[in-house]
Amino acid sequence: MAGLHLGLYLQQHGVPSTIYGDKTARQLAEGRMLNTVAHHNTTVRREQALGVDHWDLQEYGYFCHHHYIGSPGPGVPPLRFPGEFGAPSRGIDYRVYLPRLLDDYTGRGGDFRVGNVGPGDLATVAADHELIVVATGKSGQPGKPGKQGQSGQSGLAGMFPPRPDKMPYERPMRRLCGGLYHGIAYSEPKGVTMSIAPGHGELLEIPMFSADGFVTALLFENIPGGDTEVLADARYDEDPKAFDDLVLTTLRTCHPTVFERADPATFGLTGPRDLVQGAITPTVREDWIRIDGNGSEDGARYAIAIGDAHTLVDPVIGQGANAASYEAWELGTQITEDPVFDERFCRKAAARRANRVEATVDWTNLMIGLPPAPHLLELLGAMSASRPVADEFTDNFNYPERQWDILATPERTRRFLSRHTSAAMERDKDVI
Amino acid sequence: MAGLHLGLYLQQHGVPSTIYGDKTARQLAEGRMLNTVAHHNTTVRREQALGVDHWDLQEYGYFCHHHYIGSPGPGVPPLRFPGEFGAPSRGIDYRVYLPRLLDDYTGRGGDFRVGNVGPGDLATVAADHELIVVATGKSGQPGKPGKQGQSGQSGLAGMFPPRPDKMPYERPMRRLCGGLYHGIAYSEPKGVTMSIAPGHGELLEIPMFSADGFVTALLFENIPGGDTEVLADARYDEDPKAFDDLVLTTLRTCHPTVFERADPATFGLTGPRDLVQGAITPTVREDWIRIDGNGSEDGARYAIAIGDAHTLVDPVIGQGANAASYEAWELGTQITEDPVFDERFCRKAAARRANRVEATVDWTNLMIGLPPAPHLLELLGAMSASRPVADEFTDNFNYPERQWDILATPERTRRFLSRHTSAAMERDKDVI
Repeated sequence: MAGLHLGLYLQQHGVPSTIYGDKTARQLAEGRMLNTVAHHNTTVRREQALGVDHWDLQEYGYFCHHHYIGSPGPGVPPLRFPGEFGAPSRGIDYRVYLPRLLDDYTGRGGDFRVGNVGPGDLATVAADHELIVVATGKSGQPGKPGKQGQSGQSGLAGMFPPRPDKMPYERPMRRLCGGLYHGIAYSEPKGVTMSIAPGHGELLEIPMFSADGFVTALLFENIPGGDTEVLADARYDEDPKAFDDLVLTTLRTCHPTVFERADPATFGLTGPRDLVQGAITPTVREDWIRIDGNGSEDGARYAIAIGDAHTLVDPVIGQGANAASYEAWELGTQITEDPVFDERFCRKAAARRANRVEATVDWTNLMIGLPPAPHLLELLGAMSASRPVADEFTDNFNYPERQWDILATPERTRRFLSRHTSAAMERDKDVI
Repeated sequence: MAGLHLGLYLQQHGVPSTIYGDKTARQLAEGRMLNTVAHHNTTVRREQALGVDHWDLQEYGYFCHHHYIGSPGPGVPPLRFPGEFGAPSRGIDYRVYLPRLLDDYTGRGGDFRVGNVGPGDLATVAADHELIVVATGKSGQPGKPGKQGQSGQSGLAGMFPPRPDKMPYERPMRRLCGGLYHGIAYSEPKGVTMSIAPGHGELLEIPMFSADGFVTALLFENIPGGDTEVLADARYDEDPKAFDDLVLTTLRTCHPTVFERADPATFGLTGPRDLVQGAITPTVREDWIRIDGNGSEDGARYAIAIGDAHTLVDPVIGQGANAASYEAWELGTQITEDPVFDERFCRKAAARRANRVEATVDWTNLMIGLPPAPHLLELLGAMSASRPVADEFTDNFNYPERQWDILATPERTRRFLSRHTSAAMERDKDVI
């Protein structure tokens, strides 16, 4: 996705590019589900600028987050409250999205080549290009940071050294079970439900358009050792009915505001390929590396990591693809502004994206921390009591750096809340 | 100057501030000359936004650089060529400029306090303020990096550790003699002359408005061991006539395009206070430090360095004050955007200014390198042959980061020149 956004950007600005991928458009369309990602409005605006905004926002988009925070213990009632975006987000199955954008790229004359490119091929490929951009999260290093179960053959991301200073976790904090389902009515207004089962994990329920039409993505983020972890191991292939029953039961016991919209008669996974189970160790890698050519300065090339190759985040707040698109856009802009692909270029590229992308990482890692940080709980509580607070938090899914301005420290959260309190008192004064 | 720009910015945005300075407006006006600085148009635009644009650009501004590069040896002719700004620059004596802006600040209700604030006072001062900004270049550490002969009593800048990674020189590369003179007719169009005497140093001749009206600043940048170094040691007080004669002789022998506009009958320093002699070891300091309060997190305060406290550059390309104003503006913007004065605030403040300010430092340090870098000489040669190249270099005095995109490496300079060559060929084609 990051590679396509960058390729389309460069195409639009007359800069030649080649995209190397390991699947054809048809293989992408017919393959297993890749993720359950949504694009927030900042990403949609980039899609509009790239001329690939193929899905009308009023029909395919969604407009808010519905929050549910289950009771942490006896006598404590759950919280339930909405938060609204300033402009809509949109969820399109990547098996619909990627082939369409790949067609856009090739249809406009783009050079797309199918095949595996691994670390051993890099010097050869680099000789044909002025700059290499790596956008795949595959690290090719089993047991090393990255996506479990995606060792892949390429492993280009593994060439970029990890950054321990930005990696607080040595292992996944959630075990994932994401799938597409029939039989859940959309919320009203149409939105994503973020449902928290304290001690067990989160559910993201996302209105999604796939090859089957309008369906529902359920992404269970399961805390290891919690009641819902079983979802990450359940084998749909072995017994589809038992799997669907397990999911429905989990909705009923842990995520009631989604369950209340489920129709048990029609509920079920849309198909055996529409499921992704795994886990992510949040990973940040160095922004760039030097690829030595024939030993002389003239032969030197640089490779820049974008998207999953640069930062691999847990999907709990759906930021990975949006950060990837942002990085593609920033890099594309710099390529048109200063097309000299040396160390200075790499350092500038790293610096210009750092604030938003590091905020994405830090915010995501805060959201999956255990036990939850007290100031995060304070903020969630305040969101339940104040619509402006909930709306600002929700719209900040477009601006992770602003979210991190609010969440980086307990002091910052308090300041944010006291600012909202003052604003609310001003409003009340007006009423009097 | 950085402190005033920041104070005026905050005042405009309703943020309370206090400026601590060691001189009153009157003491500033009646004191020794502080520098020979000019403000480029990006700085002028900030002055317009701050409502302190008191000197009409058509009358007080200048419009171009006149370059002269003396012969490096027998048979090699000198080069002489202009370069034009996109919009005018302006030189106002700081003994006129600073008191006027200080009046603006206090007249608009600003809190200005006169007195020395040294490192020992910082904890006390910090207790009264949410954020400390240090804008003075005085390091208070004789023999340490900074301005020679300005040890001062305050030394606040010395609290910010030096950054050896950005400091290629251990000692001054030029010994300076800057003064205001009568008896030089302005160039036509009115501009700054940058005159290079290979092996001996540079002269910056700047149309300047002072308490004496329109005068001329001559800033001699003398290479230690060169023929003109004597200017840095000559004592005006001991024999004014001998001093003026020495300067005039130097103009005649080393800087003929300025000498040809000098009137020996009226030529001379405008007064004994209108002279600054010294030398600068180019210094970059850390962006911020933590001031521990009473030991608790609540008592912690941060101090941010701007202007000379952050980077002290040789004045050879007149970038110091412009960088200082830029840093004040960026910091002011961030204070209004995210007024939580913690470590995150400091890191963001450092990152957002790094590209332009580090480019200012690197570019300036390249200009005073000995022997001159071959690619710098190539660029100067190309400027003499191509007006668009000279104009772009000249206008980039407003945008040091763009200049450094051109000068960071020999490869970048070549790319820049080949881009101009292609553009020139396109133009020629149109003519055919």
